[in-house]
This record gives sequence, structure tokens and C-alpha cells, in this order.
Amino acid sequence: MKWVYVEDIAAYKDKDVEVRGWVYNKRSSGKVRFILVRDGTGILQTTIFSADESHPLFGKFDELTQESSLVVRGRVREDKRAPGGFELTVQDIDILQIARDYPITPKEHTTPFLMEHRHLWLRSRKQHAVLQVRAEVIKAIRDFFDGRGFRLMDTPILTPSACEGTTTLFETKYFDQMAYLSQSGQLYNEATAAAFGKVYCFGPTFRAEKSKTRRHLIEFWMVEPEVAFATLDDAIDLGTDLILFIIERVLTDCRADLEELERDPKLLERITKPFPRMTYDEAVPQLQAKGSLMKYGDDLGAPEETLISELSPNPVCITHFPAKIKAFYMQPDATRPDLALGVDFMAPESYGEIIGGGQRIHDLELLEQRIREYNLPREAYEWYLDLRKYGSCPHAGFGMGVERTVSWMCGIKHIRETIPFPRLLYKIYP
Amino acid sequence: MKWVYVEDIAAYKDKDVEVRGWVYNKRSSGKVRFILVRDGTGILQTTIFSADESHPLFGKFDELTQESSLVVRGRVREDKRAPGGFELTVQDIDILQIARDYPITPKEHTTPFLMEHRHLWLRSRKQHAVLQVRAEVIKAIRDFFDGRGFRLMDTPILTPSACEGTTTLFETKYFDQMAYLSQSGQLYNEATAAAFGKVYCFGPTFRAEKSKTRRHLIEFWMVEPEVAFATLDDAIDLGTDLILFIIERVLTDCRADLEELERDPKLLERITKPFPRMTYDEAVPQLQAKGSLMKYGDDLGAPEETLISELSPNPVCITHFPAKIKAFYMQPDATRPDLALGVDFMAPESYGEIIGGGQRIHDLELLEQRIREYNLPREAYEWYLDLRKYGSCPHAGFGMGVERTVSWMCGIKHIRETIPFPRLLYKIYP
Repeated sequence: MKWVYVEDIAAYKDKDVEVRGWVYNKRSSGKVRFILVRDGTGILQTTIFSADESHPLFGKFDELTQESSLVVRGRVREDKRAPGGFELTVQDIDILQIARDYPITPKEHTTPFLMEHRHLWLRSRKQHAVLQVRAEVIKAIRDFFDGRGFRLMDTPILTPSACEGTTTLFETKYFDQMAYLSQSGQLYNEATAAAFGKVYCFGPTFRAEKSKTRRHLIEFWMVEPEVAFATLDDAIDLGTDLILFIIERVLTDCRADLEELERDPKLLERITKPFPRMTYDEAVPQLQAKGSLMKYGDDLGAPEETLISELSPNPVCITHFPAKIKAFYMQPDATRPDLALGVDFMAPESYGEIIGGGQRIHDLELLEQRIREYNLPREAYEWYLDLRKYGSCPHAGFGMGVERTVSWMCGIKHIRETIPFPRLLYKIYP
Repeated sequence: MKWVYVEDIAAYKDKDVEVRGWVYNKRSSGKVRFILVRDGTGILQTTIFSADESHPLFGKFDELTQESSLVVRGRVREDKRAPGGFELTVQDIDILQIARDYPITPKEHTTPFLMEHRHLWLRSRKQHAVLQVRAEVIKAIRDFFDGRGFRLMDTPILTPSACEGTTTLFETKYFDQMAYLSQSGQLYNEATAAAFGKVYCFGPTFRAEKSKTRRHLIEFWMVEPEVAFATLDDAIDLGTDLILFIIERVLTDCRADLEELERDPKLLERITKPFPRMTYDEAVPQLQAKGSLMKYGDDLGAPEETLISELSPNPVCITHFPAKIKAFYMQPDATRPDLALGVDFMAPESYGEIIGGGQRIHDLELLEQRIREYNLPREAYEWYLDLRKYGSCPHAGFGMGVERTVSWMCGIKHIRETIPFPRLLYKIYP
């Protein structure tokens, strides 16, 4: 008998098939026994009918517990009353293993308990839906860039220099020297962009931040495109199109998951371009008027991100930050050199910054000056300076955090549920 | 004027366009000057005609050096004599930056010199071709799994336990404890496979091996599928289909790159399934007869991988290894429990092992016994043991190394050229 997956079951109407999976739930009603079988791709109602209470399949039914593994064989029948519209009339069951006292029961559990059992919690419907959205968001991102002629160029995780200060870096011994876990592939992207024109890197990123917020992970995934000969405006256009592409995909391919998560699709459907733009100088007085305690020159914090997200149903682009609060490589504005040509995309509904980027310095002397001003070890940046010696050109790009994007798509407030095995402050198990 | 990429130039025949890029080469011939402009997506011949030797564009031509950045505007013309079949009749040139003394000249350079200038070497035609094949191989792998209903489930890089011995592990302080960089996502894959049925992870992997061979990288990318309810045979079928899918894609989409690399496509075209299979017990006497010094019970080394690859134009699958030389989680053969249900795919032409995998232990007691036998810290594996308590089932999967696969596809002997910024023994710059 053919082994089929639940998500493909409609193609096997009135056929005999085999399903392999786990008991999600069971119940009995008179002469009928129902076993809900999940196989990872869906949940199928399987039914056993008999007038004979001593029927051997009834015995097996009684033995089965939540999450026991089994192989069920039977005929696929269309039935509008069944969840998904199909059910399986059971002919035969092989029990592979009986699960005793599965820790996650239908009752409420605390988050620390569920996080401690993350390896099992993944089987729950809501977690399953979130991570399916995650997989689709990642596929959408890759399809977006691949479809526009960007070349995937993986950047290294182990790097020799501490790019932006050592306080949030993980370090490890690398044979006879020290190495640091990458916080961004951007500097390397600038080299590959000069070789391939349009590139992106997409990998895990590490920040040893001692902050415990619902928006931070110690280990998270980030996609970073970089385009040679591009400007701040090009980066904003690219980020806008990327966000719209992801939303379109999620709305098309993840309808059932959004429903499982009780996420109102209208909040995503209403996103349209252009996204509102605002300079830092314009934003500060507005934020202060709405109660923010920030002063001019401060970076935007979580309270400000929330206030900005109340301004529009769309993401809001904040540009032209004070150069001092941004990275050393940011291109200054031509007429206001104290401002950096950077952009942060603030997601609506308080989901915070999901994209940060801008235009990079392409002038050798200015970059050398910045490296001195920021007290960076010049020898570690020789190769990066080379990019300004040999065919320098304006270029721009950004980084988008996958987990924040997924939490926005799913409408879940804590980022820890958007990655299979979250790494949090002091938390690295399982 | 519209900014277009060289790879799209054919769509702009007889139109005026702008190309942004770098001087790849230049030459003059009587009243004509040729500038080969590379923009990362291709190389375009641009031509300046004039009877007037003092034409300002001739002055700009004289100024330009290898790798100088520029913007060229002009009309696209079909010309069969031009490389690629199109050229640009130049109307205007903006020079952005003149590159002085670009270190990589058309003369021969030593490999250490080129590796030290990896950030620039990427612009060379051969390196460009290799990394385009890499991007296509990665896309093929993702399309293969996504198209077959596998869910991408990223596994963590920072892990709390040293899975297979600490000698080749990178360690880092993780707040109040130690963490290790992942050598494989497999154990975590087993948890996600029980939640999603068919999964894969795909990320960077780290081995602090003090070996300096042409087949090893310290940091490399690996794709690892895992399938619940699957056996060794299923894993072999999946690996076989994956390899054939990648080859098909490379042959279809990377023809020009293979040509640039002087790679004979026939060596890939001839690969067909089924791949030959051989047990370890069958392989050892054959290898010894061919001159291998290995003894029964030894693992296969590089010389054996080469000897095996001479047996067939196809990859060869070696199965049923002595359990003692394989990982603790390998399922033993039912009739010969001293043998493990593992498989190594050896690529042809001496490219070595590109896939390693097999069936995992699903019996709780046996796994507990192995954890004791291998002296592993049980508390770190509690979550992994849980997978055998709650709905255990046979399951199988494998890992495929991206860089080895790319080096095979490209026909290049040293793996260091198959990743943008290779990490090698003592070598972490740039």
C-alpha cells in the first residue's frame, strides 16, 4: 500500500493508502472510534467502525495515547464533516511505539516549561504554523533576490576582527589567534558586490547582548543584499519591494497557518507602497510630542519604534540619522555631513525595526578618517579599504531580520517562537 | 538613460542604455578603442570610434586602468564578432574612480598571494564562474527539498554540548556557561522531523580540524535532510535523486560557467541512477587488492576514497560500516548488530565523500546504552532521548557538503575556491 502524506490526501480519494504519523487526539462515539493522526504535513481523521465491541482495532484504539507513533492503512473517503474534507476508513493499524505521559497536554503550560520542552512543543499546532510561515518567508526572500539577478554569496561566520565593538561579540580561539562570530556579512558583501554587481548573504548572526526583550535573540537569521552603484533611495525601493513580495507570498501560501494563528490577514493586505518616509530630524519632535523622552542625538529605542508604528498602517522609513549614532561606514549626506544616509524600516503594529541599512562610504580618504575616529584597528580593514582603491563606486544595501519579519507576519509578540531552537540570554537548551 | 545589466543587454538591441561597471581590459586598433566593461553579471565590449585622435573620449580611454569604475552610455548593437554577440557604441563615459596598480594582473600569481587578496580575486573570471555555480547548486538543493514537501527548519549554531568529542570543536563563552559551534544540525533535525515529517536544515558548520588537505575547510556549508519513518534505503534514494537534480540544474543553467572553467560536461552528463552500492565488508578486500594499506575496522581515508571513485563513473554508495567507527546514534543492522546502517556517497574523479548519513537508532534502551558506551553526558541528551519516548519511529537522513559538491561540479581540485571567503588552518583573513 502506498505511503502518502496528509497534505496530498485529496489526490487519493477512494484509494487505499498508508499514513505514518502520531496520535494527535482520539475520541469515541457509539460504534465509531476516531483517531486524529498528524504526520507533520497535516492532521487526518481516521475512523474505525464496528458493531463488535471486541473488534481488535478497538483494542488498539484503547492502547493508543497522545503522540504514540503508528502506521494506519485504509481507504480515503471524501467527507465534508471531517477536518480538511477527507477521512480514512481504517483497515489496519501498526502501533510503532506507545508514548507514556507526553508532557505537553491540552491544558495550559507556562512558557518556561514549554521552552524547556521546545523539541516537543514544535509539534503543537500553533508552533507548527509559525514555523511553516518562517519557512515560507525564507523561501520568498530567496526567490525575490534570485529572481532579480542577485547572486547568493555566503559570507564567513568566523571573522578576525571585532567590527563594531567587542562588548556584544562571541569570541573563540581560532588555532593561534582569536576569531569572532559575525554580527553582519555586510563588509564582505561589499567585496562580493564589486565582483558580482548585486549580491546577498543569508545566514545566522550573533549578538551577545545582555538584553532580555521580546524583540531580541542571541542567534538570529539575517538576509543582507548589497548593490554596487546603488544609493540610499535604491535601497529603500528594494526593501519596500522585498516586504511587499514577502507579504504577497504569506497571504497566498500560508492562509491556513494565519488562520491557525488567528492572524487577521487584512492587517497585511492593506500594506501598499510607497511607505511613508521621515527624516530623523522630522521624527524627533513628533516623537517628543507623543511623549517620548528621547533627546535629539539619541538612537530610537523600543518606545520610539512603537510610537512610529502608530503613525501608519504601512512600515515607516526613518532616514538621515545623526552620523554619530550610526556605523563608521555610513555615507554622509552631501549637504549635511553630520547626517548619515541610513534608513530603518519600522514595521507597523509595534513590531519594531525589521530593516536597517543605507549607503556606504565610497571615498577612500573619508573611510580612513572614520577608521581613525572610531579607533578601529586599521590592519584588519586593509582589505576593506582596498575596495575603495580599486574601482570604488557608490553602493548601498541593508539587513533584514528574519525572526522579526516572521513575528510580524504571524502577529505573535515574542520573537522566541519564530525560530525552532531560540538562543536567549542564559538559555541554550535544548 | 536606463541603467541595465550586461546579462540583460540582448533585450535592449538598438536602444540607448547606461552600463555601470569596471574596466576589465582595453585595447585600441586604428580609429577604434575597445573597453571591456564587467558589471558582475557579464562582460560587455564597448567601442569608441573617431577619426579625430584628440576626441575627448579617447582621452578618457587613455586614463582608464584595469578595475577603474565607470558609467558608460551608448547604443546597444548586435555584432556577431563581439563576445556575447552585442556591443555598446559609446556616446559618453563618466569615470568614477581610477584604480592605481590593481594587484591582480593578467600574469601568474601564487596561490598564497591570491588568497591574501581574496576580496579582489573574486572578480577574476574563473573565481566568478566557480561562485556562480555555487549559488546555483545551493538554489538547486533548496528547490529540490522545497519541491518535495520538505520544511526548512534552521538548527542552532550555538549548542550546549559537545556532540562528537571536543577535539575539533570551537568553543565560546555563552554568558555563564560554555557553548560550542555546531558540527551538524542532525540531532535537532530529528526533533523537527517528528514535528514536520520531512525537514532539512542548511547552514554553516564548523570543524576545528588541524588537517590541511584540499578537501577540508574549517567553516563549510552543509544541507541535512531528515525524514521520519524512513530507512537507510530511503536515504540512499533521496541522496541519489538530489545529486541527479543538482547535476541537471548545473548542466542547464551553468553552461557558460563550465565552459569558462574548461569543465567537460560529459563527465556530469554520464551520471545515471542507480548508483553502485557496496558494503564495507565487500569494499575492504577490493581496496586492499588495489594497494590500500587499510585494515578491516579502519575508516576510509582519502586514498580509499580515490580508489573507490575509480570503480565507476557514478558516485558509489558504501554501506554497513563497522558500528565502532561511526557515530553513537547509528541504527545497527538487524542481523549483524556490529554493523551500522550508514551510507557514504563517494563522488567520482576523486572528489571524495560528498554525502554521509543513514538510519538513526529509534529504540530508547539501545540509545541509552550507546550514550553510556560513548561516555556522553546524559543530561545534555535528555531532550534527544525524549524523541525515543514520545512517538519514536525509524528515521533516516544525511548531510551533503556544499563545497565538495561544487568542486566536483566545477572540476576544481581544491575546495578553498568554492566559497567566497574560505577559512583554513591558521587562515582567517580577509
